[in-house]
Amino acid sequence: MPEINDILSGKALAGARAIRLIEENDPKAFELLKQLYPHSGNSFIIGITGSPGVGKSTLIDSLIVEFRKLDKKIAVIAVDPSSPVSGGAILGDRVRMQKHATDKNVFIRSMASRGEKGGLARTTKDAAIVFDAMGYEIIIIETVGAGQTQFDIKDLAHSIGIVTNPGAGDGIQTVKAGILETGDIFIVNKSDKPDCEQTFQQLNMMLNMKAGSKTNTATSSKTSSKITWTPKILKTNAQTGDGVKELADTFLEHFDFMGKSTALTTKQKEMENSYFNALLKDLTINKIVEFIKTSDKYRAVLKKIQSREIDPLSAAQLLTDTIIKI
Amino acid sequence: MPEINDILSGKALAGARAIRLIEENDPKAFELLKQLYPHSGNSFIIGITGSPGVGKSTLIDSLIVEFRKLDKKIAVIAVDPSSPVSGGAILGDRVRMQKHATDKNVFIRSMASRGEKGGLARTTKDAAIVFDAMGYEIIIIETVGAGQTQFDIKDLAHSIGIVTNPGAGDGIQTVKAGILETGDIFIVNKSDKPDCEQTFQQLNMMLNMKAGSKTNTATSSKTSSKITWTPKILKTNAQTGDGVKELADTFLEHFDFMGKSTALTTKQKEMENSYFNALLKDLTINKIVEFIKTSDKYRAVLKKIQSREIDPLSAAQLLTDTIIKI
Repeated sequence: MPEINDILSGKALAGARAIRLIEENDPKAFELLKQLYPHSGNSFIIGITGSPGVGKSTLIDSLIVEFRKLDKKIAVIAVDPSSPVSGGAILGDRVRMQKHATDKNVFIRSMASRGEKGGLARTTKDAAIVFDAMGYEIIIIETVGAGQTQFDIKDLAHSIGIVTNPGAGDGIQTVKAGILETGDIFIVNKSDKPDCEQTFQQLNMMLNMKAGSKTNTATSSKTSSKITWTPKILKTNAQTGDGVKELADTFLEHFDFMGKSTALTTKQKEMENSYFNALLKDLTINKIVEFIKTSDKYRAVLKKIQSREIDPLSAAQLLTDTIIKI
Repeated sequence: MPEINDILSGKALAGARAIRLIEENDPKAFELLKQLYPHSGNSFIIGITGSPGVGKSTLIDSLIVEFRKLDKKIAVIAVDPSSPVSGGAILGDRVRMQKHATDKNVFIRSMASRGEKGGLARTTKDAAIVFDAMGYEIIIIETVGAGQTQFDIKDLAHSIGIVTNPGAGDGIQTVKAGILETGDIFIVNKSDKPDCEQTFQQLNMMLNMKAGSKTNTATSSKTSSKITWTPKILKTNAQTGDGVKELADTFLEHFDFMGKSTALTTKQKEMENSYFNALLKDLTINKIVEFIKTSDKYRAVLKKIQSREIDPLSAAQLLTDTIIKI
């Protein structure tokens, strides 16, 4: 088990060990996280999301360059639930961002979840706590897609950047998918492509239509008047780096905005609630289902399912109703 | 609620309604599935998996053509946990396979999970039960990636086809990712590309190295001697249809093999167990966590988390230990 103090002083090796314990669902990770948690809550967590192929990894690569110019320590957690994963390493992402490998102020980690517990959302949150406690000022979480059930980036990051590409329909697709509400910053990447301006305008129009709604409204802590973050749209070319400085600045601007209003406190609370509820579910399910599985009733019901005397749905209902008397 | 008899007699509209109830986590779906389950267990369920862009949808499109020549009724469940999803429809897949839209013996459905319960694996299994009860002889489940935790295709399909493309390293990546054990049929798609033969040989060599191991060994029901399914490798060109007939035949050959050995019974049992355990988890968690959330203890702990008197990990532990006395 890595030393707490090594992690808190930002030692990469200790951090890497902690992440590995998390990924392996080692019970030691839980104890470690308990000790690290009080030292977390200082990082600005950015979620970068979008369909496969829109250029998220390249964009993050360029963002790192910009944030490093501002002397920020950055950790990247690349989450790809759809990649076949070996030992927690997704080769592609790592290779793409490898030029930062020698920069000790940049920590890039691909995340996968091996065990049943919690799944990727909790593993990612756990890793973010480690990086946060290690003193990384910015944590970028890269994830494929937004809005899916099993992995909700909204509960993990302060600021969400949604990456799309120029092209008729793509912008509209994004909007259709209910992502408009999720994004704080919309990024039209591959700005050298035709239709970039058109996609920009489409997004702009759609965001304007949404404006005035209650989304992204926060009450200022000082004046208690309503302050609203208007989602921004930026054009970038991750390959050449065009527009990426502006993107980095806009993310920092958003964080600054949140800190000045009640938005940051509200967001932190939501993130904590969500983490706590996920933990509660995990611990409850472990404790109870493991208990149920040791019972004779479980074994008897399983036999009945296999002999087709009962269907699995009725069986599960019967068993929980028999054992859990609430 | 759709009529059971309409579903059992294969009426598309009734089936579509059932799937929608499942997707929306409507409590009616649970009751419906209880009634449908005894009528399921007759379909051959094929899982088609592989990284994005390898051509899974086009391949399935061609497979449908071949299976239709054999007069099989086919349902396709396209599962894409990484796509931004709107209302359960992933436009891309649907459009790609649209040429079968007028064939009443083909039912194509994109699946998404909206609610918290169960997630995509259970939603997909539920949908498969509906299609099975409707009389579809073959159900194809298309999924991105294999081997990930939250969605294990092994528990959902009888036969797994893993799609890869020609190209140095890709075959090796597949193997590294621990997918070698999962695949019953390996498909090198885009066979017109250079390096196809090389990828084929790489896979072949790797599978030979694995041969003799206990994977895929089944005991014959008659002779009780060991019969082994040797994973097959096929080259296809989904665009032109080259090799797809052979692929369809090989899937049927695998199903035939399973039926003649104990493999099918074993697999069915594993699939049933897995479904039952998922249901047990879902029902347990709903019942208990909902109960916990109504308690004063929950509210008190939540306050302490927000005032940072306790970390969420310790809080979850404390609460489950206090409430669940096992």
